[in-house]
Amino acid sequence: MSFAPVMESDVALWSGEADVIVVGFGGAGACAAVAAHDAGSGVMIVEAASASGGSTALSSAEIYLGGGTAVQKAVGYDDSVDDVYGYLMDSNSPQADSEKIRAYAEGGAAHLDWLMSLGVPFKNSELKERAMMALTDDCLLYTGSEKAWPYNTRYKPAPRGHNLEVEGDNGGPLLTQILLEQVEQRGIDVHFETRALRLIVDRHGPGQRVTGLVVRQDLEERAFRARQGVVLCAGGFIMNEAMVGEYCPQFLDNKTPIGNPNDTGSGIQMGLSVGARAINMHEGFLSLPFYPPATLTHGIFVNGQGQRFINEDAYHGRIGSFLVNQSYPVYLILNVADYGNYETESWLQAPVAGTGETLQELDAELGLPPGQLELTVARYNADAAAGHDALFHKDVAWLKTLEAPFVALDCTPGAGAFFPCFTLGGLDTTVQGAVRSVSGAVIGGLYAAGRTACGVPRRGDGYASGSSVGDATFSGRLAGCAVAGQGTQ
Amino acid sequence: MSFAPVMESDVALWSGEADVIVVGFGGAGACAAVAAHDAGSGVMIVEAASASGGSTALSSAEIYLGGGTAVQKAVGYDDSVDDVYGYLMDSNSPQADSEKIRAYAEGGAAHLDWLMSLGVPFKNSELKERAMMALTDDCLLYTGSEKAWPYNTRYKPAPRGHNLEVEGDNGGPLLTQILLEQVEQRGIDVHFETRALRLIVDRHGPGQRVTGLVVRQDLEERAFRARQGVVLCAGGFIMNEAMVGEYCPQFLDNKTPIGNPNDTGSGIQMGLSVGARAINMHEGFLSLPFYPPATLTHGIFVNGQGQRFINEDAYHGRIGSFLVNQSYPVYLILNVADYGNYETESWLQAPVAGTGETLQELDAELGLPPGQLELTVARYNADAAAGHDALFHKDVAWLKTLEAPFVALDCTPGAGAFFPCFTLGGLDTTVQGAVRSVSGAVIGGLYAAGRTACGVPRRGDGYASGSSVGDATFSGRLAGCAVAGQGTQ
Repeated sequence: MSFAPVMESDVALWSGEADVIVVGFGGAGACAAVAAHDAGSGVMIVEAASASGGSTALSSAEIYLGGGTAVQKAVGYDDSVDDVYGYLMDSNSPQADSEKIRAYAEGGAAHLDWLMSLGVPFKNSELKERAMMALTDDCLLYTGSEKAWPYNTRYKPAPRGHNLEVEGDNGGPLLTQILLEQVEQRGIDVHFETRALRLIVDRHGPGQRVTGLVVRQDLEERAFRARQGVVLCAGGFIMNEAMVGEYCPQFLDNKTPIGNPNDTGSGIQMGLSVGARAINMHEGFLSLPFYPPATLTHGIFVNGQGQRFINEDAYHGRIGSFLVNQSYPVYLILNVADYGNYETESWLQAPVAGTGETLQELDAELGLPPGQLELTVARYNADAAAGHDALFHKDVAWLKTLEAPFVALDCTPGAGAFFPCFTLGGLDTTVQGAVRSVSGAVIGGLYAAGRTACGVPRRGDGYASGSSVGDATFSGRLAGCAVAGQGTQ
Repeated sequence: MSFAPVMESDVALWSGEADVIVVGFGGAGACAAVAAHDAGSGVMIVEAASASGGSTALSSAEIYLGGGTAVQKAVGYDDSVDDVYGYLMDSNSPQADSEKIRAYAEGGAAHLDWLMSLGVPFKNSELKERAMMALTDDCLLYTGSEKAWPYNTRYKPAPRGHNLEVEGDNGGPLLTQILLEQVEQRGIDVHFETRALRLIVDRHGPGQRVTGLVVRQDLEERAFRARQGVVLCAGGFIMNEAMVGEYCPQFLDNKTPIGNPNDTGSGIQMGLSVGARAINMHEGFLSLPFYPPATLTHGIFVNGQGQRFINEDAYHGRIGSFLVNQSYPVYLILNVADYGNYETESWLQAPVAGTGETLQELDAELGLPPGQLELTVARYNADAAAGHDALFHKDVAWLKTLEAPFVALDCTPGAGAFFPCFTLGGLDTTVQGAVRSVSGAVIGGLYAAGRTACGVPRRGDGYASGSSVGDATFSGRLAGCAVAGQGTQ
């Protein structure tokens, strides 16, 4: 499929026009449309699906924000902009974008206020469990590795995942519904079942400006003019196997792409076709969602050498990203007591690889280097008994000696465990969302936000839940302001 | 600096023309020029420097080839195409290009024959030491991890580094001299001190074809027409700090870029400017050149957890690539006896971090988790005594118990150790060197080879010395044939 742009002079018939055309009606697109409208522009949204929401609707819609949000203050957390900035820079380095992270840290509290002004509800409360997501209507939870080594030694931790005030894992649908209502209330022109095909440009070559969009609608190709610009909010590319193969083939085998079916990279491809630069295309989120039950955090991961390789209280995405770089097999070694309700509560789907009344008995089933599991557990148990994990600094709250009987879960990719993944590369944009060309100059009339752009989250091993919906709504809102001529470039 | 292409219709004066213009007179460019000439084309080379050779001239010019080369056969190695293919696919996965590797494995023997037909001398002999390069005039040496775990369990090892028949580390200069003579003998039109600035195209947009090149020469910008095409052989981008920061920032801090000063990515940028696709841009070679003296291989590397993380008999680039993903500090722990002539023979420059008559004494200087070094060494020594490294499978030839007195070298990046690096990403090309656009179609009249293209070597942790000069000469030769209308696309 070619995404090559169409010359404006070749357009025979314009089927419509708007100041701003937003491609994609997920979290980023909705916020871009609302912001552009509120800045005075006439906005059109085109969405390939029959409904709004994109991958945001499928997510838990935690929103990762800090630096003293209204909820953080109400609950009693004194989170600082510098700690947010430091943590995000560190966890996304070396490819962290300091300008984007600075804006995100400084603008976190105001962004939550903006979402609340749209009617997005947050309760002044905290969920204290170690959880993948809140299933209660509580707001704050730790969704990254802020409390885990090494970050806890560098930046003051605070919970920054903001869960919507809704019971169950229903944040995504609720956020989608509220944003849809906001778009409808504004009378924004929404075209569902309308697939963006190609950008329209005023010329090819130097000085090129994006002036519209060709879409497929009602089985026809139609051209829409965008007087101020086009904002690409069409998601990432995890559902495009060919693109994943080209740019991040490590996500092809034994991993599960998560997102909506239209995360095919079409926005990135349209950008590339007008000379945009794509960056960080090799990176993605890759998780081993091994909690709940949180008790599994008491266990230890060991690799094919029978050695530990991470503090098990880190964020599940950090653990997944470290895990795939180990020698296989990889096991999670547990007390049977901590196995708990694994079979009913867990998403992990890792099969039991062995059990034993003694470590020797367990070891015999695992095929690890003879004797190493005993050495590893002996060291870990001594450290746990002393209340200090000298090797990996797992927090004392999760330190507990491993005692018989034992069980080992096989977390080797391909053995059955669930490894959800999505992409973190995209178009290179300014903080305000203007798309940069391969020469570094911005491309006139073209903006991108959400996972079509390369935003704040840039590393699988540094990811925090809520940073995609946080970044998508934030970058969408900024791009909407910018395309409408407000905000600075 | 803008690399935006120039429209042919905007060229007021043509300063010259050729069937084929080759940009860059390193190993790839020289072979492209010779091959295109021999296929019947009139060839012009433009080179920014005052002399030929590029980064090839600065290298040892080992040439990684196998599958039964003339030298392998003469020395008595029965290397198979399947073993070369399997090893290169495995060590470059998941981003290995099966078509390129298949061609490289199947064409290895013929490529060495071709180089010999140009007068490149290889002796029918082997250097048996573990060495970074041959300082004798012997030919074959192991330059990858073929004999090391895990590859040795999967593919039959054979030495595939082909060192030129010349004493000392002089392969690069000799190869450069021979290729220069070949170019001169053919009367190929060479322009030194001529910097390629922009491609010339027949149009902007769909159907665009590259038809020439704008250069800076004698302080003027001049246009040269290329009737058949332009071959970009302008090296990688390790000397361009901005590009490294955008695409592979892990190579910025405490690493030493190696290559020639014109490895600024200009060829890649010119390609991007006409809509080419760049792939694997995050990857590079990153080495810890810790041998000679080879006796250091008897030691063990330990990371910040005091744990081993690799078989120390692996290729130095594999060790460097693993090392930078560890928790720091990283030490090489040695018997003082194996330290040997480290200070005079080594390139490593890693400072001594500690010494000790006992491990406890050494440990106290290193700041590792208390007691862990003893556990690690005890395990290693037991395995060494048994002749089987159960954890990392270091070959028995390098297994030796660690005995007092001990010395530790600090190999932590930033502590002083030498970490040479260069890039392994570039333009996406067909096996024959035609450059692919972002849509996947080839761009008419544009070819790339050597490190301007993304070729056979794609991973730092799978790299083998000689695969860049091997790939550069091979891909240059194929691109030269293809642009001249011979060879298939």
